[in-house]
Amino acid sequence: MTPLDVLRSAFLTHLTTRFSVPKEPQNLYSPIHYILDIGGKRLRPVLTLMSCELFGENYQKALDAATAVELFHNFSLIHDDIMDNAPLRRGKETVHEKWDVNTGILSGDALLILAYQLFENYEPETFQKLAKLFSKTAIEVCEGQQYDMDFEQRDNVSVDEYLHMINYKTAVLVGAAMEMGAIVAKASEKSQNAIYEFGRNLGLAFQLQDDYLDVFGNPETFGKQVGGDIISNKKTYLLLTALNDLPEADSRELEHLYSIQPDNPAEKIEAVKRLFETSGAREKAKNKIKSYTETAVNMLSEMEINEAGKQELSHFANQLIYRTV
Amino acid sequence: MTPLDVLRSAFLTHLTTRFSVPKEPQNLYSPIHYILDIGGKRLRPVLTLMSCELFGENYQKALDAATAVELFHNFSLIHDDIMDNAPLRRGKETVHEKWDVNTGILSGDALLILAYQLFENYEPETFQKLAKLFSKTAIEVCEGQQYDMDFEQRDNVSVDEYLHMINYKTAVLVGAAMEMGAIVAKASEKSQNAIYEFGRNLGLAFQLQDDYLDVFGNPETFGKQVGGDIISNKKTYLLLTALNDLPEADSRELEHLYSIQPDNPAEKIEAVKRLFETSGAREKAKNKIKSYTETAVNMLSEMEINEAGKQELSHFANQLIYRTV
Repeated sequence: MTPLDVLRSAFLTHLTTRFSVPKEPQNLYSPIHYILDIGGKRLRPVLTLMSCELFGENYQKALDAATAVELFHNFSLIHDDIMDNAPLRRGKETVHEKWDVNTGILSGDALLILAYQLFENYEPETFQKLAKLFSKTAIEVCEGQQYDMDFEQRDNVSVDEYLHMINYKTAVLVGAAMEMGAIVAKASEKSQNAIYEFGRNLGLAFQLQDDYLDVFGNPETFGKQVGGDIISNKKTYLLLTALNDLPEADSRELEHLYSIQPDNPAEKIEAVKRLFETSGAREKAKNKIKSYTETAVNMLSEMEINEAGKQELSHFANQLIYRTV
Repeated sequence: MTPLDVLRSAFLTHLTTRFSVPKEPQNLYSPIHYILDIGGKRLRPVLTLMSCELFGENYQKALDAATAVELFHNFSLIHDDIMDNAPLRRGKETVHEKWDVNTGILSGDALLILAYQLFENYEPETFQKLAKLFSKTAIEVCEGQQYDMDFEQRDNVSVDEYLHMINYKTAVLVGAAMEMGAIVAKASEKSQNAIYEFGRNLGLAFQLQDDYLDVFGNPETFGKQVGGDIISNKKTYLLLTALNDLPEADSRELEHLYSIQPDNPAEKIEAVKRLFETSGAREKAKNKIKSYTETAVNMLSEMEINEAGKQELSHFANQLIYRTV
């Protein structure tokens, strides 16, 4: 199989070729070029290409589908950043900061439509399958974003509700990205479902790991500020599990900690970490990450691919997840 | 052909059936039900159904395509109302007023995706044709909205630029609505193009007529406040043509009138109207409306439909346009 960095570089070339020509009206297209240039890991489109190869088709056939996934992801970033009032994205100004909210709304809308247009290069049967999966996923991502915003206003969010939210907001797009590669490669329906579930479960594990590393990660290697979620009082798997499992008094203490925003948060972070440990939430999070990863890897047996491919996927899953937990 | 009110009522029943079930998360779907309930003339979806019948297919086959057109239209209303900071839509609170901007952004996004999903009930070939036309149109509508916003900031907009803007912002969706009916009915490509151009030119005539009636309409029969565009200093075909054609001094006077917002606008409105008359802009607008309508009606000869159908379309065009000019 082609190494991931080759796929990433092929993807970037394709993206540049398709979206580097200046287009009018400039105020609509400049923000689109800007956000696509900011970069990121390009994990989702690379997964689309990888999946296409795994099922025996040249990855180049999946370049347009991969680009659609990346465009959709960037559409959701622009609109989410407006809703979250975020000034920065990957260290750079967000679109609504650099331009304004109206520009963010409209260029986001255009990105979503451009994503659909990328499917037009496939023949009708494949087009319909891709667009159908894409729409289903896109609606789920919107629902996930709505739940996420709703949860900020609620103080009785259950662990299951949280898992449902991150499944929609994050995981289903990873599953869909991989299934699109399988659709382009005309893999069997069974294989398509299996690679979708592989990606979705990996996406869940990845998101939980993100929550975990935010608290227990190594400040040297974790990209963001460790403790950031605690400082901003963000509801995560760790918090909701701890609130659920702690004795009444400790649970109240944790709730109190999540209601304050001290100037120097070091003490708060330490107190929260202790409660995450004593409640067993840290351990539960680790197990949950492991269990989602195992579910992902178990899907391999359902896929009609060769042993080398299965090992590659299994390696990829473990590398992605167990690096730093 | 089925009378328009029968088509409208069939459309409304279909819309209600498809979108009346309460769905979770409520904060995402309530605004969608709200805007779809507010109503409006439902002109675009009715045109889809009418076109489908014209080309010899039962209109019921086009109900989903018609609904997609209506959903898209409402998506653009929600997002445009945010961008225009509009408090009211059809006499009711806009979505971002009733809820908030974030709700408007996200429920608008969901509406756009739901529109695409409605094409899934067609077989792959038709699905692809519908979705392709839809995406092309949707991007043009976004570009039109961007030009519209850009023009507000510019003082050198040409008449041609204005016509290009309203073509994208308003007319192409009318053309696409009608072509979708033809696609569902599997009309020939020639007929599809002809009905698209029929709708697009009618859309242009309709928009110019809207500008015209805003100034010269009968206050008794015109739905909105006569002179509204003048009060809000809106750039329209009448203004841009007058600015272009008037002698320097009069043109400066008109520019001045469009820079003030007097408490009692009656005098301003009268002065502007006079300049629209003396410049010949009023006459030019009337001729332009007539010419677009004629172009629309001329497309009939390209359509492979019977004489009764052609008469029906021609009657429809004239009724729509010449009622009140």
